[in-house]
Amino acid sequence: MPELILDISMSLDGFVAGPNPSLEDPLGQGGMRLHEWIIATKAWREAHGQEGGEEGVDSDLAAELVGQASATIMGRRMFSGGVGPWEDDPNADAWWGDDPPFHHPVFVLTHHERELLPLKGGTTFTFVTDGIESALEQAQAAAGDGDIRLAGGADVVRQYLRAGLVDRLQLHVAPVLFGQGTRLFEGNEGTLELAGVGESPSGVVHLDYRRR
Amino acid sequence: MPELILDISMSLDGFVAGPNPSLEDPLGQGGMRLHEWIIATKAWREAHGQEGGEEGVDSDLAAELVGQASATIMGRRMFSGGVGPWEDDPNADAWWGDDPPFHHPVFVLTHHERELLPLKGGTTFTFVTDGIESALEQAQAAAGDGDIRLAGGADVVRQYLRAGLVDRLQLHVAPVLFGQGTRLFEGNEGTLELAGVGESPSGVVHLDYRRR
Repeated sequence: MPELILDISMSLDGFVAGPNPSLEDPLGQGGMRLHEWIIATKAWREAHGQEGGEEGVDSDLAAELVGQASATIMGRRMFSGGVGPWEDDPNADAWWGDDPPFHHPVFVLTHHERELLPLKGGTTFTFVTDGIESALEQAQAAAGDGDIRLAGGADVVRQYLRAGLVDRLQLHVAPVLFGQGTRLFEGNEGTLELAGVGESPSGVVHLDYRRR
Repeated sequence: MPELILDISMSLDGFVAGPNPSLEDPLGQGGMRLHEWIIATKAWREAHGQEGGEEGVDSDLAAELVGQASATIMGRRMFSGGVGPWEDDPNADAWWGDDPPFHHPVFVLTHHERELLPLKGGTTFTFVTDGIESALEQAQAAAGDGDIRLAGGADVVRQYLRAGLVDRLQLHVAPVLFGQGTRLFEGNEGTLELAGVGESPSGVVHLDYRRR
């Protein structure tokens, strides 16, 4: 059975985005600091057609994460690119261009029916209006032997966490305190099983938890 | 110069106490789950006159933490034992009995002047009414070659964090989600330096950060 994996970067005080997201700062003020560790890696740069980058723990993990999933679940605002004039438009275009980086089926949670959107490179967007369990079932059917990546945003992630549907949580804790922003865990309860810990010279701690 | 050390257990979602603290549940509902890892260790049990306990990463760390400090700073409610009928009484007795486990000078932050309280075994309680910097200076003078432990509660801890006065943060992250309770970081900002990571079979991750 494909596993539902949440792989996400968080500040030490629990935020996955900084305050006041905007067109200029889609991750909120200072939000990019959460992702500096992966953007600096050789594996991430290679996957995005760039040269150079750092090798080591972070890059090995980035290589593992790239191509880990055979299907993706995301919220409607993540589909259309978060903050912007299109934010509340249920028929907004895909923010990801016409050759998105997924190369597999993507299931978009929305309240509005919309036709299947096949794009270049094997990415198809399926719009799911009947809830998170339905999206998961469709993703499981599509993923085959692969796993499913829960891409976000934070509200969709929290819904899956709250329902106990996330099988694996790969949490990258950056050594920063944001003070405010968007929290990953808000009203989530439960017990997790620690499956692994990685420490990197970048100062990020990679925590790997399993559903218990 | 003595370092100010905060050594504290936190849930993965950032809580240092559960919801609704009471006389029966001083750490809030489920709050004890944060401390199970240390109570189970051989080193902690030995320090509290008990036999048995588990050896390993957690116990080695507990041994390091016991006796690490030569002075302690705490809030007034921690002095008198947190929740209870004495909670708002500035002249409440020490909750710690007449032979407290500190065996060194303890500086209690309060708004009410009160005389020095020397107890058995080398513990003296000094009441500090002129703020967190003053308490730190007095603790530094008292600690000699040792370090200073910031014992809590959460409000006092956050004040020191916010002022950038904590030199070392030893954070023990338990694999539990509380959903609600008392947060460690609330409005704290800044960048920390990761100094070490320890993984234990207990599922707790020990993170060691330095002020940057």
